[in-house]
Amino acid sequence: MMKSYVARTITALSLTGLIATSAAASVTMTERQIPTPVGVSSNFAAIVDQKVYPMSMPIPATTEEWLAARSLFDAPHAALALEAANKLDVSYERKQFAGVDTYFVSSNTVSPQYQDRWLVHIHGGAFVFGGGDAAIREAIWIADGLKANVISINYRQPPEHPFPAAINDVVSVWKELIKTQPAEKTAIFGSSAGGNLTLATTLKLKDLGLPLPGALFAGTPAVDLKETSDTWITLQGLDPLGSRDGVIDAAFNLYAGEEPLGSPLLSPVYGDVRHFPPTILISGTRDLLLSDTVRMHRALRAQRVDAELHIYDGQSHGDYIPDLTHDFPEADDAIEEISRFFNRHLK
Amino acid sequence: MMKSYVARTITALSLTGLIATSAAASVTMTERQIPTPVGVSSNFAAIVDQKVYPMSMPIPATTEEWLAARSLFDAPHAALALEAANKLDVSYERKQFAGVDTYFVSSNTVSPQYQDRWLVHIHGGAFVFGGGDAAIREAIWIADGLKANVISINYRQPPEHPFPAAINDVVSVWKELIKTQPAEKTAIFGSSAGGNLTLATTLKLKDLGLPLPGALFAGTPAVDLKETSDTWITLQGLDPLGSRDGVIDAAFNLYAGEEPLGSPLLSPVYGDVRHFPPTILISGTRDLLLSDTVRMHRALRAQRVDAELHIYDGQSHGDYIPDLTHDFPEADDAIEEISRFFNRHLK
Repeated sequence: MMKSYVARTITALSLTGLIATSAAASVTMTERQIPTPVGVSSNFAAIVDQKVYPMSMPIPATTEEWLAARSLFDAPHAALALEAANKLDVSYERKQFAGVDTYFVSSNTVSPQYQDRWLVHIHGGAFVFGGGDAAIREAIWIADGLKANVISINYRQPPEHPFPAAINDVVSVWKELIKTQPAEKTAIFGSSAGGNLTLATTLKLKDLGLPLPGALFAGTPAVDLKETSDTWITLQGLDPLGSRDGVIDAAFNLYAGEEPLGSPLLSPVYGDVRHFPPTILISGTRDLLLSDTVRMHRALRAQRVDAELHIYDGQSHGDYIPDLTHDFPEADDAIEEISRFFNRHLK
Repeated sequence: MMKSYVARTITALSLTGLIATSAAASVTMTERQIPTPVGVSSNFAAIVDQKVYPMSMPIPATTEEWLAARSLFDAPHAALALEAANKLDVSYERKQFAGVDTYFVSSNTVSPQYQDRWLVHIHGGAFVFGGGDAAIREAIWIADGLKANVISINYRQPPEHPFPAAINDVVSVWKELIKTQPAEKTAIFGSSAGGNLTLATTLKLKDLGLPLPGALFAGTPAVDLKETSDTWITLQGLDPLGSRDGVIDAAFNLYAGEEPLGSPLLSPVYGDVRHFPPTILISGTRDLLLSDTVRMHRALRAQRVDAELHIYDGQSHGDYIPDLTHDFPEADDAIEEISRFFNRHLK
């Protein structure tokens, strides 16, 4: 019986290739059904079960079509943000600051350590989308969760304003802000394209010799606009973001304008991150930008930056940011991690 | 043109379901070809390109077949381990220690902080496999990389010795070891089933009121033998481990014996990890146990344990452990992280 088992196993291993002399460079993932993840809260499981896949829009062909796409995409996000602002104990005001369009978003009960201190928020949305009222959902989440003050930058966007307009706007805000508060006592943060701009702006501040913030939060950042990181492909179908092909790549190119996609200010994973501020990164196991996130974490660690990685099981792109009308414990957990990280580094 | 774009977009969004009132709880991932990941070193890319998918063995039906499967599986791993031992500047000796079969593995140039101090290694292999000479590859890697001394435990395994024999063996070694060295000055570590046993044994030490180690390294640990975490399914096809169905689940059940699979000593993600030692966890974006790893990280963080997560892009299960005949920088990077973590916590 043992001899027979050995013979059967060797045959099986040969057939499946474990005993083999050649292998292929490309791997095939087969079609499959994916059930609700077991490693999430029941509240988040309900959110997963209500997701609709994939997001898809035709690629806009003209400036006018890009503007139309933006209006269409931003409208429901703006409605969500305003609903959240109403529901939570926060206030906000649209203001010009350093000549830049911003929102000042504050908890109505700011905690002592955030008195007279403004965190800087850079919204996401593939560089083209997510501005205006849509920008402030993440700022509201952080202002409410940390009992803090947040300046959310409604930076200039393509098609009218490609790279480096967004970074220049953040730099302008930063220069004005550090006239009245110590740089090391505040943080810059954002998710997705906002995570990219958080990292890229910090590279720019280094280049300019300006004081750096005391910490960064880069949520699921797009850090490589040139190459397509692995999980854009491996996790496709699990993330309402859809795929990089199509509108997202078109938006990246629209934003880049004349700048080469591999430039560190577009693709910060290629940047010189020596002496970067402590950085907390968040992603999920169903996030198309998981690879981008972990690659950036490694790039920071390689330069001995104090960089922390937090990955939520079953979460797609940006899922840790709640819509603020449906609570789930993972969102509170993310706030707790960001809060602990900032408390440790913004003293 | 703008009106026409809006109309086309709304049609596209309706067709793809972004504008929809109903959604399904199960998601379909479609078949796809996965190229070599871009976010890895060229040396590791070459390793990826030589992988063979998937591993597959018939499920052994009898004790004799399990023993035959074990011999077959362990032989090439033992050969690799002995090749590594010859190549690197390490020595090893098979010894009985506290009545348990162990290997004492040492760098030939132990660094000052590891003089007279023994780290404890628990090998992987789905609880059933990976013992004997095969056990010591990871121990060699750590002994050489950290310039340290390692006791690698050749714990009793099923089919002859199901749960809790393995944990009891580690506890016996631990009790003997801490007679001659302070518990807080050493670490317990292991990967895969060895990561499970690292965590489970620490739960057991807590139950017994014994001193805990100063740090843990749990590499891509199997922490949930009861439920199937998400990436076992989502990443199937990207990891030579194959799938959980088949030999792996059979091995988990063989190990569990009469113990319920949800017992914390089998599935430590359900354990009470308050006051756990600082723990470093490592996994990869193509690792079937990525979800297990990040779930354990969250469980530790929820109890405010100092737990660090490191995820390597494009790596499958246990890829961070080199075969020690093919160097790649990610393996050195992992050693660097483990070394820094242990240096910080084993003072």
